[in-house]
Amino acid sequence: MTDKIINIGILGLGTVGTGVVKVLKKYDCLKIKKIAVRNTNKKRDVDIEGILTDNPFEITNDPDISIVVEVMGGTDPAFQLVTDAIRNGKHIVTANKELLAKRGPEIYELAREKNVAVLYEASVGGGIPIIMPMKQSLAANKITSMAGILNGTTNYILTKMEQENSEFADVLKEAQELGYAEPDPTSDVEGHDAAYKLSILASIAFGYRININDIYCEGISNITPVDIAYASELGYKIKLIAMASIKDDNKLDVRVHPALVSKTHPLASINGVTNALTVYGDAVGQVNFSGPGAGQMPTASAVVGDILAIVREMDMTVNVLPSMKCTHKLNATIVPIEDTVSKFYVRFNSLDQPGVIGHMGMSCGNHGVSLLGVIQKDMLLGGQARIILLTHEVKESALRAAIDEISLHFSTKQIANVIRVFR
Amino acid sequence: MTDKIINIGILGLGTVGTGVVKVLKKYDCLKIKKIAVRNTNKKRDVDIEGILTDNPFEITNDPDISIVVEVMGGTDPAFQLVTDAIRNGKHIVTANKELLAKRGPEIYELAREKNVAVLYEASVGGGIPIIMPMKQSLAANKITSMAGILNGTTNYILTKMEQENSEFADVLKEAQELGYAEPDPTSDVEGHDAAYKLSILASIAFGYRININDIYCEGISNITPVDIAYASELGYKIKLIAMASIKDDNKLDVRVHPALVSKTHPLASINGVTNALTVYGDAVGQVNFSGPGAGQMPTASAVVGDILAIVREMDMTVNVLPSMKCTHKLNATIVPIEDTVSKFYVRFNSLDQPGVIGHMGMSCGNHGVSLLGVIQKDMLLGGQARIILLTHEVKESALRAAIDEISLHFSTKQIANVIRVFR
Repeated sequence: MTDKIINIGILGLGTVGTGVVKVLKKYDCLKIKKIAVRNTNKKRDVDIEGILTDNPFEITNDPDISIVVEVMGGTDPAFQLVTDAIRNGKHIVTANKELLAKRGPEIYELAREKNVAVLYEASVGGGIPIIMPMKQSLAANKITSMAGILNGTTNYILTKMEQENSEFADVLKEAQELGYAEPDPTSDVEGHDAAYKLSILASIAFGYRININDIYCEGISNITPVDIAYASELGYKIKLIAMASIKDDNKLDVRVHPALVSKTHPLASINGVTNALTVYGDAVGQVNFSGPGAGQMPTASAVVGDILAIVREMDMTVNVLPSMKCTHKLNATIVPIEDTVSKFYVRFNSLDQPGVIGHMGMSCGNHGVSLLGVIQKDMLLGGQARIILLTHEVKESALRAAIDEISLHFSTKQIANVIRVFR
Repeated sequence: MTDKIINIGILGLGTVGTGVVKVLKKYDCLKIKKIAVRNTNKKRDVDIEGILTDNPFEITNDPDISIVVEVMGGTDPAFQLVTDAIRNGKHIVTANKELLAKRGPEIYELAREKNVAVLYEASVGGGIPIIMPMKQSLAANKITSMAGILNGTTNYILTKMEQENSEFADVLKEAQELGYAEPDPTSDVEGHDAAYKLSILASIAFGYRININDIYCEGISNITPVDIAYASELGYKIKLIAMASIKDDNKLDVRVHPALVSKTHPLASINGVTNALTVYGDAVGQVNFSGPGAGQMPTASAVVGDILAIVREMDMTVNVLPSMKCTHKLNATIVPIEDTVSKFYVRFNSLDQPGVIGHMGMSCGNHGVSLLGVIQKDMLLGGQARIILLTHEVKESALRAAIDEISLHFSTKQIANVIRVFR
């Protein structure tokens, strides 16, 4: 591949960092010169004798190191270290979706100035090749939309809830015990992790900078086994879907929320911790990628794939390839969630008496909400009826107005859930 | 992307060539200088005024043309034209799997000498990014095996046979009428098309040159609705599977044949003309790609993606990137089909009398064939019984010996089908 030895510095030696050390052992020409860790005395399950440091600036300032791998996570001190390394002319490989989602534009801008590469295949979809294929193989396409399951923890929880008819809280607890969910599960469960990844993908696909705070984000903690069962009866699974599309006016619709997915769509059959992405391009149509979205070795596979890509270029080029840089500068205008258009699944608890469906239908009609289906069959304790409405596509604000009107009716006891339908 | 105009020559203006012309219209800096066709007077559905020629050497010899797109198909005269173009220093983008499978090594060798790129993303899986991701994003992996549905026509036929409980010949006829199958369907139906594609992928994955004639290849014309129904009862679908793996002794197991695929495997849910590939790497585990395996615009998307990749490099490099060349020179040793190991589905027609299952079991035992399942329930006309055996993994030669022994028994009326089980 290359004859000279290339020195690599690694920031962080957690699960992914350890995997990177393991995979890099295959390559004689790639030498790990230093690894920055918080605690140099901690026992590690890889042989890293003599190369640990608790001072990360020993890496970012080392003139012999040409590639810095950032696998520490979080934005602080990762942002400072990555930008320091770039200022010192080092190429960056990172798996840090939060860093890129929150500070990406500053990092890319600096990298362009300094003519270094910033690669981040591992930041989305773990080991699944997604970012390079989108930038290169699909480059001849105008990408019109994408949708994915980008968080393994929530997909594991939803899969288990479905298979075992269990409550969210119980499955989450079990997942935490098994190590599939973090002790603080907020970032996964509330959709933030998926939103970080989606902002990275949407930014590549549509060529705009995306403010992570503009992305509508709703987690899965409100999903119940009842909703999963009704969705199944209607021909759908419930998944945490990250979706993005570009509108005719170049506004972006970018959001993460639970959604009903038709069982015939490839995303419906993605189970457990697997991640998947469907991309729609004007020429190619629909292509699907799936595989392990996390894990030590899959993520390390993506990190080292990026290192090898940089090494190939270093041998060859005077300038870093355009596909290794981010050149777009326009900020995206994101469609507010109330202006987005979806089909909806709405579950009500109502008094069981004549006219209930009628008044719901009237309220929907008053706000231009057209119904695709109605289910009423289960009685609840206390003589209440469970009613499911499935709507045609409608602007979210209209749906909300209809629901508000229905909730005012004396027969309505609870708006038990409102879930968008993906496809 | 680039400021200077880059001149492109296209060999062939069939379905794919026309798509390439359409997609290239997006790019001001990419100019189609000439298109070689057999008949310059034929009416075309793209605007190509003044650039048609019936002399392809006008393209391969034109010093202004730097990229030649070969979308004529077949090996003759494609091989001569492509090698002529390479000798004249032109980069090549081709969608021609047959050419690469049969003459690839000579072409790659010459391209390496002349320091030009030969890219061929469109040759496998139409618009699905497969080749670049394998070469780049998965570069840190030792790929251990792969399996795919690489031919849309046969997958369409098998899907229809399953959905409509129809015979192969009837569905083939319908597919021909709809244009999903060629007037001469041999290359698709007998698995040759899939074998061409598999040889390209296996060569990249394992780093050996593969003689296309060494690939065991069996088509789908023997598959019946009866087999599809029994397979379904056992938890499988029947698909034309192209599979390749590398053994501990570096021999390759490379073959194309119908196979039972567990309904839980992603390949089982690939329906219609969709193509899919599952790749197993030592670090990444399993990743899956799927999408449109053919068609004008998807294939054109891949061709133009390759053109753009070359253009990016032309701007930048003195030498063509290693990932755009093929550097391996060793010829693969392919495991003969009789030495491969599979589970098997075998369907017999037998006399319906006591001891039939017993003698089958004995014959299997005599040759070390262990049974995973037996079904006997349908009676055929003439008092015969239909018996299905499902075996554990066994060397193909042992299975064949057991079947030979069973066929000698007076109660055995017909070995109705033998189908390998993929997974």
